[in-house]
This record gives sequence, structure tokens and C-alpha cells, in this order.
Amino acid sequence: MGTIRLYKRDRIDRVIRLDTNLINEVEGAFTDLTTKQVMMPPIMRIDVPQNNGEVDIKSAYIEGLDSFAVKLSSGFFDNPKRGLPSANGMMILLSAVTGEPLAIFADNGLLTDLRTAAAGAVAARSLSREDSRVAGVIGTGSQARYQIEALMNVRDIQKVYVYGRSIEKADQYKRDIESRFTIPVEVKQTAKEVVQGSDLVITTTPATDPVIHQDWIHPGLHITAMGSDAEHKQELDAKVLEAADLFVCDVVEQSLRLGELRSCANDQVRSSAIELGEITSERKNGRSDPNQITICDLTGTGAQDTAIARYVYQLLDTKEDEGHERS
Amino acid sequence: MGTIRLYKRDRIDRVIRLDTNLINEVEGAFTDLTTKQVMMPPIMRIDVPQNNGEVDIKSAYIEGLDSFAVKLSSGFFDNPKRGLPSANGMMILLSAVTGEPLAIFADNGLLTDLRTAAAGAVAARSLSREDSRVAGVIGTGSQARYQIEALMNVRDIQKVYVYGRSIEKADQYKRDIESRFTIPVEVKQTAKEVVQGSDLVITTTPATDPVIHQDWIHPGLHITAMGSDAEHKQELDAKVLEAADLFVCDVVEQSLRLGELRSCANDQVRSSAIELGEITSERKNGRSDPNQITICDLTGTGAQDTAIARYVYQLLDTKEDEGHERS
Repeated sequence: MGTIRLYKRDRIDRVIRLDTNLINEVEGAFTDLTTKQVMMPPIMRIDVPQNNGEVDIKSAYIEGLDSFAVKLSSGFFDNPKRGLPSANGMMILLSAVTGEPLAIFADNGLLTDLRTAAAGAVAARSLSREDSRVAGVIGTGSQARYQIEALMNVRDIQKVYVYGRSIEKADQYKRDIESRFTIPVEVKQTAKEVVQGSDLVITTTPATDPVIHQDWIHPGLHITAMGSDAEHKQELDAKVLEAADLFVCDVVEQSLRLGELRSCANDQVRSSAIELGEITSERKNGRSDPNQITICDLTGTGAQDTAIARYVYQLLDTKEDEGHERS
Repeated sequence: MGTIRLYKRDRIDRVIRLDTNLINEVEGAFTDLTTKQVMMPPIMRIDVPQNNGEVDIKSAYIEGLDSFAVKLSSGFFDNPKRGLPSANGMMILLSAVTGEPLAIFADNGLLTDLRTAAAGAVAARSLSREDSRVAGVIGTGSQARYQIEALMNVRDIQKVYVYGRSIEKADQYKRDIESRFTIPVEVKQTAKEVVQGSDLVITTTPATDPVIHQDWIHPGLHITAMGSDAEHKQELDAKVLEAADLFVCDVVEQSLRLGELRSCANDQVRSSAIELGEITSERKNGRSDPNQITICDLTGTGAQDTAIARYVYQLLDTKEDEGHERS
């Protein structure tokens, strides 16, 4: 039997960076989804109605890899009343050779946050104009922060526009980003101003009604919509999808069920939707003209979880050896 | 945040016993399945065809309890070539109040073995004659051992008959049981002789064709069939089910899909099948006459996993306090 190890969030946080190495690993997961046999069973969901909670379980085994992840992610929406975050989670890395559990990452959702942000950077690298300088963010939560951090690895961002329903949270976002990075953040009064002034826009909201409308968008714009991941959520008006030159998503079936395609009845849009892995594997083109309007809708995949779990396991292994050297 | 803990098999093995406390806990899980709201999603399965492997994920949340388990169990059937057991697994106990992971039991399947054996004892207590003295076992694997150990808590067994396809393994079984317990074990040449001579019989095989036939059974016999848990398995000939006075299973829907009811087309048998929890909750009768022939088909439930995970978590908590006292 191998030795299973438990790694907690602070330990993981010390070794992992939201850098191009991680972005490349997550890009590899999208490429695998297109080019390899992937076993990705439907999400398992356990509801705990008494406590306004739910646990989702995701997994994906990618042909040929020697390990794969099982992820538990929970949302318990009464937690804030107890002073706890709603979201929690953990990942388990299993050997794909023997089935043995190799590692447990009790990360409280950190790896999910990072792989989601890395996917945003993959989308921006494939679809946004290379000369994008102004990034717009709609939403002011942790993903709004991670997405900008990831994006700066792939685009030379000079300015950020942000809009959130709470002006206090938008101001806090501005302070956090400006103190951490050397770029100015401007809080806008409306989502419309963010979209109109940006080269690329990231939506990171739990919205159930569109937060971007068709008459705000302009040639050359790229939008990454990463908020919608459930049957009742929507960030983009269907007319935005109709107006785009290229609609991309992580998994078409998931976008139709949980993402932006769900709210767009236009058959032309639905049938021409392509997957991000088709672009990263160079089977299809990403942006081919600076004036194209492009969209990427991300609902989240078990393949990303497997990619980041394998990556952090390798990092921890390396850093541990270094630790031994030093001590 | 609470403190998540990782417990490995040897640690768990030191605190848990296959005793009436555990049997009562597992009985409680069956009662809960009948009397409470239980969220038990379909089993999630990840296939790893390259390595002849599979991972199943089970879970069950029982209304009102403050925690529940998620179980991963794997079967990698090339492992024996590597000198490793095919089966592996682990359980995770989650708070049903906040979603936080509380404990990880890296038990390599020990808790599954114990809760399965405990279920056999629950079935025997509800269905076998109280004066059962001779137990028959078909199969010589680890469950054939655990089932006898569990059974001895609820019936005054004086002798064991065993049959297995390998005479060497049957002889080894005899030596193991006789050295561990003070009861004689007799190796029989046929399954027929085991059934004919026993008051109750436990089948613990991966058989895909019946190992018990109708003309072997006799008044007063109880059979617990715990081997079949997949679409291709079967231990009892359909005529055995037709000849029984009472057919009981853990979950009717699972028995129809994965267990003995799958191979029995008789509508009378199917429609009169009852669940073990209906008996343990005293909503229906178990054995009501010493001459009845009774059957219990066990396919395994997430509710049992939740019961044993909660139980061992509590034991470890208590023993840890004792440990501190001593050290």
C-alpha cells in the first residue's frame, strides 16, 4: 500500500501559484477533453434541505493518465449566519493504475477557485485580442480577483473596470487589486460602462437574469462568462450570443443544461457552438480577426479538477524534497 | 473551520469491533431507510478500462443526522498481479450542518466489510430461527469470515459448514475460523450438502450463475445472499425465491436492478418483496413461524456507510480521549 497524505489549505497555498504553468496544465485538460477518451460521469448531488445545503461530486478519468481526481464541493447557504463561508470542498487524488488513494487535498475550495481562474486565462489567450489592455469585471467576489490575477499572465492588462451591485464591495475590490498589482481599478456605476470601455469582460456573478445586453457590445470584444453553472442561472442575454461571431464553451452539453446556451433558443447559435478544447488542440480556430466578437462560457469540468490535483500533487512532492534539503 | 482528520486502517482497526453495538447501528440505518427521509443518489461510477479498474461512489444523507458519509470503493482487477488486493476504498464524513469535511477514513475497505457483515447479522436476527445452531457458508473470502463473526453475536452457532470451489481455500477457511473461534468447521464437497445440513446459509460469492437450487432447501431455512451487487451476478435460482415464504432485501429497487430479484421474473415474488427496514422498524413481521423459509438479499446501501462512518468517528473520538489519559 502506498502512503496516503492529507494536505490542508495553507500547505497547498504555499506551493501553488496562479501562473502560466498552472494555466498550461488547465489548457491541457481542455485539449484532453477533445483529443482523448475521457470518463466524466454526471455530477452526483446530495441535498441537505434541512440546512439549506448541497454537496456535488465530480470526477474525470483521462485515458492514459496514471491518476485522477474526485472532487467534493459543498454549498451550505446558512453558513454565513454562523460566520463560515458557504462554499467548502476537498479533492481526492486516486491512482488510475491501482485505485489506491494517493492524496487528499482539504483545500476548502482553493483548487477549484484556481482552476476556474486558470480556465478564464485559457479562454482569454485563445479568444481575446492579443492587444487587450482594459479588462472589465462584473462581480466583486473571490473569482473576480482570481480571474484578473490569471488574466495578467496572458494579456498585458493596463487598467481594470469593475461593477458590482454593492458599491462598498466594488470599492474593496479596487483597494485589493490596486494594493496587490500595479494596475489602476476604476469602479463603474453600471455594467454597461464596464462593457463599453473594455477590450475583454469577465462575468463572475450568481445572476439569474442577464447582466450584459446586446446593445452594449462592440467589435473586438471578448466576454468570458463563468458565473452560470446551474439550471436557474444566466449572465448573458440571448441576443448577446446571437450577436457574437464565435461562441465557445467548455462542454457544449453542460452549457446547454447549466450555462448560457440554456437561455438561447437560437438553433444557429446552438449548432455552431464549439468547445474550448477544439481551439487549444488546434482543430478549430479561435479569434481570427481583431474585430470579431467572441464569447466563452465556462461551467466547470472534472477534467480541470484532475489536472490541478495532479499538478499540485507533483508540486507538493517536489517542495517536500526541497524542504528536507533545507531542514 | 473544524479540524479534519485522516485515520488509516490500522488506527480504525484498533477501535472498531464487529459486536452488537455495531450491528445495532447498522440496524438503525435500515430502520432509517424505512422511517426517515433519506437522500441516496444513484451510485456514481468511473471506469478505468486501461487498467481493468472501476471506482464507485456512494452516499446517503439521513434526515436529521448531523453528518453523513461519502464512500469511494475501487476494484482494480489487475492488482493481484502486482501483489495488491483488488479492492480498496475510503470514506469521508461530512458535516450535514455546515458541509465541512470532518474525517477521512483511509480504511482500504475495512468499514465496508464490517458494515456488510453487520447487515448479515441484522438479517439473521430478524429472519433466522432463534434456535439456529448450524451455519452454512458458500464462499471462502473475507466476507465469509466476517459474516460468521457477526452472526455469532446474534445466534448461538455451534458448527459451520463451508463450501468453496477451491478446496485449499476452504481448508484455509476452516483453519482460520477454528483458530479464531471455538467452533468446528466442516468442509463440504458440494454446496448442496452445506444447504441441506444448515439452519441458516450465507452466500458470499461473486457468482454469475445460481449456487443454491430449489430442491436443496428445507423448512425453517434462512438464506442471506450478499454476493450479488451488479447486473451480471446471481446466487439464488429464481425457483428458490418462489419457494420461500418471505423474500426480504435491503432496497427493493436495488435488488431488482443488481440483486436476486433481477433474475426472478415471478410477479408474485417481486410484488411481495419487503425491505429489511420494514421489519426492523416493526412495520412488518419477520419470521413468524419456525418452519418458514426466509431469504434476505443484500446489495449494500449508502445508509450503512453513513451509519458506520458516524459510529467509528465517535469511537475514535472517545478512544483518543482515553489515549490522552494514558500517555
